Amino acid sequence: MNDNLDADRATFVTHLECSLTGEHYEADRLHNLSRAGRPLLVRYDLAAVAAALPRDTLERRATDLWRWRELLPVRRTEDVVSLGEIETPLVPVRASGGAHVLVKDEGRLPTGSFKARGLVMAVAMAKELGVTRIAMPTNGNAGAALAAYAARCGIETIVFCPEDTPEVNVREIAMQGARVWRVNGLIDDCGAIVGKGAAEGRWFDFSTLKEPYRIEGKKTMGLELVAQLGWRVPDAIFYPTGGGTGLIGMWKAFDELERMGWIGAKRPRMYAVQAAGCAPIVRAFEAGEEHAERWEDAHTVAAGIRVPRAVGDFLILRAVRESGGKALAVGDPAILAAVDECARRDGLLLCPEGGATLAAYRQALRSGEVDEEEQVVLFNCATGLKYPMPPADRTLDRHGDIDFDAL
Amino acid sequence: MNDNLDADRATFVTHLECSLTGEHYEADRLHNLSRAGRPLLVRYDLAAVAAALPRDTLERRATDLWRWRELLPVRRTEDVVSLGEIETPLVPVRASGGAHVLVKDEGRLPTGSFKARGLVMAVAMAKELGVTRIAMPTNGNAGAALAAYAARCGIETIVFCPEDTPEVNVREIAMQGARVWRVNGLIDDCGAIVGKGAAEGRWFDFSTLKEPYRIEGKKTMGLELVAQLGWRVPDAIFYPTGGGTGLIGMWKAFDELERMGWIGAKRPRMYAVQAAGCAPIVRAFEAGEEHAERWEDAHTVAAGIRVPRAVGDFLILRAVRESGGKALAVGDPAILAAVDECARRDGLLLCPEGGATLAAYRQALRSGEVDEEEQVVLFNCATGLKYPMPPADRTLDRHGDIDFDAL
Ligand SMILES: Cc1ncc(COP(=O)(O)O)c(C=O)c1O
Ligand SMILES: Cc1ncc(COP(=O)(O)O)c(C=O)c1O
Repeated sequence: MNDNLDADRATFVTHLECSLTGEHYEADRLHNLSRAGRPLLVRYDLAAVAAALPRDTLERRATDLWRWRELLPVRRTEDVVSLGEIETPLVPVRASGGAHVLVKDEGRLPTGSFKARGLVMAVAMAKELGVTRIAMPTNGNAGAALAAYAARCGIETIVFCPEDTPEVNVREIAMQGARVWRVNGLIDDCGAIVGKGAAEGRWFDFSTLKEPYRIEGKKTMGLELVAQLGWRVPDAIFYPTGGGTGLIGMWKAFDELERMGWIGAKRPRMYAVQAAGCAPIVRAFEAGEEHAERWEDAHTVAAGIRVPRAVGDFLILRAVRESGGKALAVGDPAILAAVDECARRDGLLLCPEGGATLAAYRQALRSGEVDEEEQVVLFNCATGLKYPMPPADRTLDRHGDIDFDAL
Repeated sequence: MNDNLDADRATFVTHLECSLTGEHYEADRLHNLSRAGRPLLVRYDLAAVAAALPRDTLERRATDLWRWRELLPVRRTEDVVSLGEIETPLVPVRASGGAHVLVKDEGRLPTGSFKARGLVMAVAMAKELGVTRIAMPTNGNAGAALAAYAARCGIETIVFCPEDTPEVNVREIAMQGARVWRVNGLIDDCGAIVGKGAAEGRWFDFSTLKEPYRIEGKKTMGLELVAQLGWRVPDAIFYPTGGGTGLIGMWKAFDELERMGWIGAKRPRMYAVQAAGCAPIVRAFEAGEEHAERWEDAHTVAAGIRVPRAVGDFLILRAVRESGGKALAVGDPAILAAVDECARRDGLLLCPEGGATLAAYRQALRSGEVDEEEQVVLFNCATGLKYPMPPADRTLDRHGDIDFDAL
């Protein structure tokens, strides 16, 4: 029986901290960016967590996201909201060419993507802090996750997405009771509209990293991965990077686990994967910059990583560099070929963003950046079922003469 | 760490048995139907399983489908195939009107449906028994699961589906390397083609219940549910019934668990839910028949339960009757309304077949067939993301004057 959702548990948040200046902010309050205009990070009394939560207590719990409650910001059990945030499986893929390559299949989460991790946490906190109206820009999956959790709590939601957002995303958002608007622009243009309405006091701004709790949900990818691997980190992680919340969140998770004494100092090399048609982080990485300039005329089939400008750019670049990893770009043809080959050989249908990590891994293998014996985790952040697939039209007339040799 | 996939474990299959006559058949051999033309059921030495597998050993294992290996037919660890068959979550739904209604969200399994449970087992057994070419009729989801697992094992696959099978299903089957044919008929017409080719020795027939191992995979729904509820059964189960493999499988699971002494004699009332436009089991149930006649002109939005004739009809009817349950039909408008309301109120997007169980539950609640305080489990057998949703087209010009009050 899973009591992660209804047992009261101790919480350990001490404060929030500006990711640029280190300035402190009060916990259990509504926040967006810091005064310096940067993301706020939630801080915990990690020594106290380690004392209160023996590892074998954690190991006896059901494995869903809420097993980590001592490392999460939600204080009151009644504010926990859930659609079943299961631990996502690690699936070996031969199409990679590597011997120990695992896909972390995040498409199994509620609403079919890892956005559920961030949004379940942010919505629970919004509920805890009395928010009644939320607006958010999205490339699709985040909006769907927000709509689902907000529907469950009765919070009103308005979502803005680029006009060419995948049809399935727009429809599922609407089905789940949110109002969704297609905007003639990209995600940062949508973000500007949300920001304007928030400034006028019309709603609370839920943009990624402009709200401090989504990253706490996303960091569970790192916590969970380490637990799944027997309290070890892999050699490398390939992460499809748009806003980068997941990468930043995992980096934070590793740090917290080390401070708790649950892992050592070893870190995976973090590879931030972007599409060749929208690679601001790659450009900044290669130029040795600390911040990334907006990428003009962004385009790629991998809509989730079509993010021209990321407010957490410096956090992504810092994690990648400290880890000894890289920022890598792959073209759309390589992405589509990777999706196709993984489905055909491994029976695993990736989303284009997941295909990008597979393509980047193969590129890194060819260039010698990774060794085929290394243990590597690729993030497939959404189910491939959400994305257009080529038609397959062969028809058979059952009343006619069936040529069995030709089937 | 999950060693369900790679640790060697004892197996306990003794033989197979005709579900009609009780005649015995040898284990570890290829089989289709019995000589009496009926499904074969796999039998185990359950006393030996109970002796070899203390319940707390099982409880310490990772929770995926392969934790049940002692109750499954696969003998050799190397034949285990997997895409991450996680334990599916139970999600409370308020839209039901009941106080303790849980949706078992099977859409989280590989390929987005519970068909993965049956097909992972059947493909593993096909691998074990040296099958190299498989054909199968499908309403969509089963074909997708077969294609995925067969791709992983390098088994050649040919799938036949009704011509109006959901587009996403046809495409995912093809993406995963199977050959897929649309046939101008229903699933039993497709089955006839598969049967003809099998009789000519062209392939092995993987039709549901004509192959004895899919049901062993499907029975894990029952095993898992009981474990999730703390070794208790719920008061009632609503199951969307096409071929009925899942219902028959769960019924078998409860029987096996009782023989092992893990549960008592109490059974959930089993409700077989069908669509008003294709309700052969409901008609037979109401007429007091042991078998169900073919339903002519079958039609419903819930493609997965558009099965005019089920080879396991008598097994479904027997389980429903013995359990004190019923066979219930719901119309397409009620199905669509249930899907809609569940998404809006609970943030959970059901497939139409899942919507049918919710609609049937509400109908049963109104008629007093179930009490609102009873614990009830509704099966949502596939992710709602696979099905058409109404368009949601509101567009906003970011260059124009935005009327924030109207958003
Ligand atoms: C499928 C998918 N992959 C990757 C991303 C990028 O995630 P992040 O914002 O954490 O970089 C997104 C974001 O929309 C996504 O939907
Ligand atoms: C989503 C869905 N629900 C229910 C069913 C019916 O399952 P069964 O054959 O076990 O009755 C199917 C079968 O195709 C399905 O795809």
